[in-house]
Amino acid sequence: MAKELKNLTKRAENYSQWYNELVVKADLAEQSAVRGCMVIKPYGYAIWEKMQRELDNMFKETGVQNAYFPLLIPKSFLSKEADHVEGFAKECAVVTHYRLMNDPNGNGVVVDPAARLEEELIIRPTSETIIWNTYRNWINSYRDLPLLVNQWANVFRWEMRTRLFLRTAEFLWQEGHTAHATKEEAQDKAIEMLNVYADFAEKYMALPVVKGVKTANERFAGALETYTIEAMMQDGKALQSGTSHFLGQNFAKAFDVKFINNQNELEYVWATSWGVSTRLMGALIMTHSDDNGLVLPPHLAPIQVVIVPVYKTADQLGDIDKVVTPIVAKLKGMGISVKYDNADNKRPGFKFADYELKGVPVRLVLGARDIEAGTVEVMRRDTLEKQSVALNGVEEYVAKLLEEIQQNIFNKALRHREKMTYKVDTWDEFKQQIEKGGFILAHWDGTTETEEKIKEETKATIRCIPMDGEDEPGKCIYTGKPSARRVIFARNY
Amino acid sequence: MAKELKNLTKRAENYSQWYNELVVKADLAEQSAVRGCMVIKPYGYAIWEKMQRELDNMFKETGVQNAYFPLLIPKSFLSKEADHVEGFAKECAVVTHYRLMNDPNGNGVVVDPAARLEEELIIRPTSETIIWNTYRNWINSYRDLPLLVNQWANVFRWEMRTRLFLRTAEFLWQEGHTAHATKEEAQDKAIEMLNVYADFAEKYMALPVVKGVKTANERFAGALETYTIEAMMQDGKALQSGTSHFLGQNFAKAFDVKFINNQNELEYVWATSWGVSTRLMGALIMTHSDDNGLVLPPHLAPIQVVIVPVYKTADQLGDIDKVVTPIVAKLKGMGISVKYDNADNKRPGFKFADYELKGVPVRLVLGARDIEAGTVEVMRRDTLEKQSVALNGVEEYVAKLLEEIQQNIFNKALRHREKMTYKVDTWDEFKQQIEKGGFILAHWDGTTETEEKIKEETKATIRCIPMDGEDEPGKCIYTGKPSARRVIFARNY
Repeated sequence: MAKELKNLTKRAENYSQWYNELVVKADLAEQSAVRGCMVIKPYGYAIWEKMQRELDNMFKETGVQNAYFPLLIPKSFLSKEADHVEGFAKECAVVTHYRLMNDPNGNGVVVDPAARLEEELIIRPTSETIIWNTYRNWINSYRDLPLLVNQWANVFRWEMRTRLFLRTAEFLWQEGHTAHATKEEAQDKAIEMLNVYADFAEKYMALPVVKGVKTANERFAGALETYTIEAMMQDGKALQSGTSHFLGQNFAKAFDVKFINNQNELEYVWATSWGVSTRLMGALIMTHSDDNGLVLPPHLAPIQVVIVPVYKTADQLGDIDKVVTPIVAKLKGMGISVKYDNADNKRPGFKFADYELKGVPVRLVLGARDIEAGTVEVMRRDTLEKQSVALNGVEEYVAKLLEEIQQNIFNKALRHREKMTYKVDTWDEFKQQIEKGGFILAHWDGTTETEEKIKEETKATIRCIPMDGEDEPGKCIYTGKPSARRVIFARNY
Repeated sequence: MAKELKNLTKRAENYSQWYNELVVKADLAEQSAVRGCMVIKPYGYAIWEKMQRELDNMFKETGVQNAYFPLLIPKSFLSKEADHVEGFAKECAVVTHYRLMNDPNGNGVVVDPAARLEEELIIRPTSETIIWNTYRNWINSYRDLPLLVNQWANVFRWEMRTRLFLRTAEFLWQEGHTAHATKEEAQDKAIEMLNVYADFAEKYMALPVVKGVKTANERFAGALETYTIEAMMQDGKALQSGTSHFLGQNFAKAFDVKFINNQNELEYVWATSWGVSTRLMGALIMTHSDDNGLVLPPHLAPIQVVIVPVYKTADQLGDIDKVVTPIVAKLKGMGISVKYDNADNKRPGFKFADYELKGVPVRLVLGARDIEAGTVEVMRRDTLEKQSVALNGVEEYVAKLLEEIQQNIFNKALRHREKMTYKVDTWDEFKQQIEKGGFILAHWDGTTETEEKIKEETKATIRCIPMDGEDEPGKCIYTGKPSARRVIFARNY
């Protein structure tokens, strides 16, 4: 077994440490020399690229187009929308100068004090302000609407406590910003995009999510309504995986974006914004992986199938090469990404452990005896089960197995979530249960005050008011006041 | 004719103004509220996305993988490579603070003076420094090499005079950074990537380029050799379209990146870097477009074919719809992007002018009489020629026509460059010719001094020493000193 693998902390010992080690050992990402900023390594980036590709296709199917807006935002823009500035303006990277000069004392370079900006620029923490300032010139009439724009970009928030993928100062994301002629259309769009996120999470990431509405307290700064998809990690904690906001006319008013409606009246434009980020990588890793390393869903795995030869002599390897070549070609032709690892500077055992660590969904092992018997050993990463399969038709077997693995890890995650979701009706029960993790469906009186007290006492937050929940009158677990339906409480990442 | 189009300045009147107007009128990009930073609009971004997709595929075919490195670079990193800091460290965006606070006087937000960074951070003007600082931990042995990494990213250089796409403070690009065990391998890689750029320019952008070597004076800051592809715009000026650098061991030495070679000796790693940027958009626009607007190469056009119905009654439109539906389906099935514009709030004449302005390569126009006759009017954007074509089989006709247009605009650009390339042997002739534009093949004595004097007197720079040029002894046009071969002089963007 490879050295890296032997050292991986077990989930049961320390889940948090297991995650931190796994991200690094599986070559996904690492800390950089810049505080809170990560380097996304090629293997991690290949997964992110696959996510991007699929999401981008899904966005385009809804009529969204990509564009690009400036990295830097004039400081004054941030204070134009009152709630927005409270939520975002504080912890951010501020550009104050535009030139360096040689240090007069000969110590490298220093900031040129003469090159101070009149108005400071902020590295975008999110782009509503610069985008709505731009939209003012793009929108005149209802004929210019809807405007359905997305950008793939880096953003920056000066986070004090960072963790790879889950919370970093710089992260990669997409942010959609749409403009509409009516309130209803904007509300519908916000929900449509939430559904895109949920579909993506379930179909590609094999990640079951709960769709819901955020409480006023947890809303995006400047939104009238925030919709969310919430996933449960293996430790029972929640991870907010994507949000979609109905912004009302707040940003249109802040940036004076009006249009002439089809009644020939001047009106403010209605808005949405929605985003998912490299945080999804954290969700992906934490949902499926195990003590042997990553478990990747086949639909997002950069390498779906690895083939490892086991041989003693060069002749044996030659024979195996001959058998493998057409299998590789056929798998590729079926759109399956396959790697034949016949490098001779590593032993098979090392390779096995390494591809397990990297979460490759299917492994084929071929030795001299397999060739004689016309069989191949197939291992599936999700269950680690091995099976001897006829070489003839192995490609179809593998294709089917990949889909089976995709479905299996989704089902497993769903069962886990169901098992860890509890209806709780008393405060004592709530305090006990929250220590064990999981989603708690409980009644809440609807006030921010109660929400914050519960958070203070238990570190549990309201993840969302589930959209598919049913009305069910009850009493708030904390205050006993009446409640119309249950909400989801959990501790969260 | 649409209003926007009528107002487009003619190339012959003012080429520079024609370009500036075209970029905006064709909805490619516009200035933002942040000095020198552009907004890339959806139509412009769609072209850039197509470029990215093709380049990315080409990179991956050479074994390159994508990754992502931090946006911000510690100031001290910039001064570690002596030449690099001279070339890059000066005009850049400097982050000095990490927090804003409410203005005590109630005027929005101000920079929190308590949140000053110990060491300032620079928004990357290019990423050699942060990447080589990272590579130190990735490379131990020759077995870790080569490292073939690319990133798609935004970069920032505080340019004083900016022009959309051609020179902007923030721009989008890709930067490849490779690490090798031997000098030869690194040199070969730098040239291999230059060839990828040249192939991409010719096959996708229909842009003929000259491959060459930069003089010492024009080299990338920190490189031992810079290779370039140079294109000629319609006004006879050169546009540097992509560069690939052999960096020797400079960055490995600056960041102490050593490896154990296969002789078990410790050695510094050899490096290359190479990049193309949104500047390519400028090259694309300026090479092919005309007084009616954009002319896009079919291989990069977001919409390759537009179909416009001409009708008087709803019945007629219904009939046309019925004929067009299977044509659209078939074209899409052939991988051709097609738009059927049957919107009834714009007249056909407006649509014609608009799609001409946007450079859509092929336009089909269908009226009631065409349907009776079983024909359709096909217009090609490059020559504006119209042809009546049988509806039956029009899809194959269009597919062939797209390839013909791609080839034709390449040939046209190549003929233009050949016509505007001159061999010049005297200084008087040189001074005369340079005023008329074009590439001048002339002898040069090889010194930076002469190069700079020629630039001072004529604004001409040495674009490159062409790789496919032949040795031909001669005398420097400026000093009369001996020269082994001709170099290319031009004024440039």
